[in-house]
Amino acid sequence: MALEKPYLLFLGDAPDQLAAKTATGIADWRPEWCVGQFRLPDCKADVGIKDVDIDEAVALGAKTLVIGVVNSGGFLPDSWTDAICHGLEVGLDVASGLHGRLQSFPRINAAAEKHGRSLHNVRQSEHEFTTGKGHKRPGKRLLTVGTDCSCGKKYTALAIEKAMRARGMDADFRATGQTGVLIAERGVAIDAVVADFISGAAEWLSPDNDPEHWDLIEGQGSLFHASYAGVSLGLMHGAQPDRLVLCHEPTRTHMRGLPHAPIPQLEDCIELNLANAKLTNPDCRMLGVSVNTSALSAAEAERYLAETSQKLSLPCLDVIRGDADGFLDHLE
Amino acid sequence: MALEKPYLLFLGDAPDQLAAKTATGIADWRPEWCVGQFRLPDCKADVGIKDVDIDEAVALGAKTLVIGVVNSGGFLPDSWTDAICHGLEVGLDVASGLHGRLQSFPRINAAAEKHGRSLHNVRQSEHEFTTGKGHKRPGKRLLTVGTDCSCGKKYTALAIEKAMRARGMDADFRATGQTGVLIAERGVAIDAVVADFISGAAEWLSPDNDPEHWDLIEGQGSLFHASYAGVSLGLMHGAQPDRLVLCHEPTRTHMRGLPHAPIPQLEDCIELNLANAKLTNPDCRMLGVSVNTSALSAAEAERYLAETSQKLSLPCLDVIRGDADGFLDHLE
Repeated sequence: MALEKPYLLFLGDAPDQLAAKTATGIADWRPEWCVGQFRLPDCKADVGIKDVDIDEAVALGAKTLVIGVVNSGGFLPDSWTDAICHGLEVGLDVASGLHGRLQSFPRINAAAEKHGRSLHNVRQSEHEFTTGKGHKRPGKRLLTVGTDCSCGKKYTALAIEKAMRARGMDADFRATGQTGVLIAERGVAIDAVVADFISGAAEWLSPDNDPEHWDLIEGQGSLFHASYAGVSLGLMHGAQPDRLVLCHEPTRTHMRGLPHAPIPQLEDCIELNLANAKLTNPDCRMLGVSVNTSALSAAEAERYLAETSQKLSLPCLDVIRGDADGFLDHLE
Repeated sequence: MALEKPYLLFLGDAPDQLAAKTATGIADWRPEWCVGQFRLPDCKADVGIKDVDIDEAVALGAKTLVIGVVNSGGFLPDSWTDAICHGLEVGLDVASGLHGRLQSFPRINAAAEKHGRSLHNVRQSEHEFTTGKGHKRPGKRLLTVGTDCSCGKKYTALAIEKAMRARGMDADFRATGQTGVLIAERGVAIDAVVADFISGAAEWLSPDNDPEHWDLIEGQGSLFHASYAGVSLGLMHGAQPDRLVLCHEPTRTHMRGLPHAPIPQLEDCIELNLANAKLTNPDCRMLGVSVNTSALSAAEAERYLAETSQKLSLPCLDVIRGDADGFLDHLE
């Protein structure tokens, strides 16, 4: 995947901050690639970079408009289409992580053709996958798993990559979702693969490597999320992780998008994840818990991490407020 | 899905009997729809109905050639293409359960257009699915699960449907694979759905129903099969079964297609399936074990069933050698 940089992040009319997860991820991890954010009047998200409109972005050198927000039900409101078409008209390519291809929206497709611009669909891989085989591959692998979706699996894998590289270790973040693919400029949005090929796609994503090399594989969903657990399990089996890190957001009251579904207990989550992971790697172990404490005060966060660490006898860290070194100290 | 009947079952050069699983399923459960089987010289499978060539099949009234064998790697050998094109030329429609669309093979597509025949892709659903929600739905549901794939999940669900209907119970087989869809003339090949929508497709397949109605849902793969477990889990969460029946083939030495992977213990299989099923139905219970004893003598089968039943304290039956009544007796 080769998108022309720098980017204008398009946030549309995102109804809340999590809806702009893709823009947030790029702004947090690749700020040097972004000239600014473009928000429509009703936008409730803010990724903390300069607000610019499309013409200002072009004047600042932007080459690609990245749709950094999810649409609901595959439908694009006219206000988005107007903005995207204007971007194409004034010289921007457009990149999207939506399930639907940009080419399937007639006005957008026509504008791209008329102005000779490129439309990039990050969620659809060009690769033809096969079914997974479960053969043990050389190299080491760590997979982030979650009590819920959208609770820090990508950030945790990226933070561990950063900490490992700082120690001179050989490590690569492996992206499995559209935001991760935009950050890493490679990977596969595994939830868009045909179901038969989930674990095969995960095997392709993390191929044979040197014995001391670590792949830090971005987890998806949760084994406890009724919408996405199939993706989580197929990814886990294909990843055949040596270590898991469990990601958790302690203030959430129910599974994201499922108000009737409670958040699982950390102990249950550890047990079911390990029970399933052992199918393709009997030596898989839980390395620690990565807690997203952004909704807690510093004192509350410190107390929560200490208590959880003691209760589970595992390192419990906030890898964004702090760093991921505490996990690396417990690797062996 | 409306295919014109009767069918000619095309077995190609199937390398073994399991490769012709689709033809076997149709011949076993819907023999009245079939005028015969057409086998190429190297075919190693036999579904036990009359051998006819394509012209003989047309003379016998056949309307649709059903590809009843899997291809390897999505590639169609010339010998298959020749036969399929000849069928189109002499007036047959063609139906396929392969991952690739028939229209994607240029010679087949051209022959269908030239002769005005229909090409049916049973594996691809026309429906646009959404993500699963996990809301409890009225009606009762039974899902067949397996120690491995291709071990009797479809036959077991069909046999239970037959036994329930014989007792006057309100019951429907729900197909989740291409063979089941061909037998039931409805359903969805769930392994061909985009991964994000596995559990959503399962919810769509088995909608709200009367409180006493049973859906008998065909399971897919196995939670212990490294290639397909993601599909198995997403299907399970969407099905939210009240009862599971574990299907098993006792002479198999390794997981199908994975010579390095051992068959799981029945006890482990029961435990992991129940642990996962409870996410969307905390009251889910294991009803019994359905054993495919076709590779055992009658005496060996009887002994195996008795020993297993005693060991697990569950009814263990061969629903094809015998019937599924023993499960129904233990339903309450």
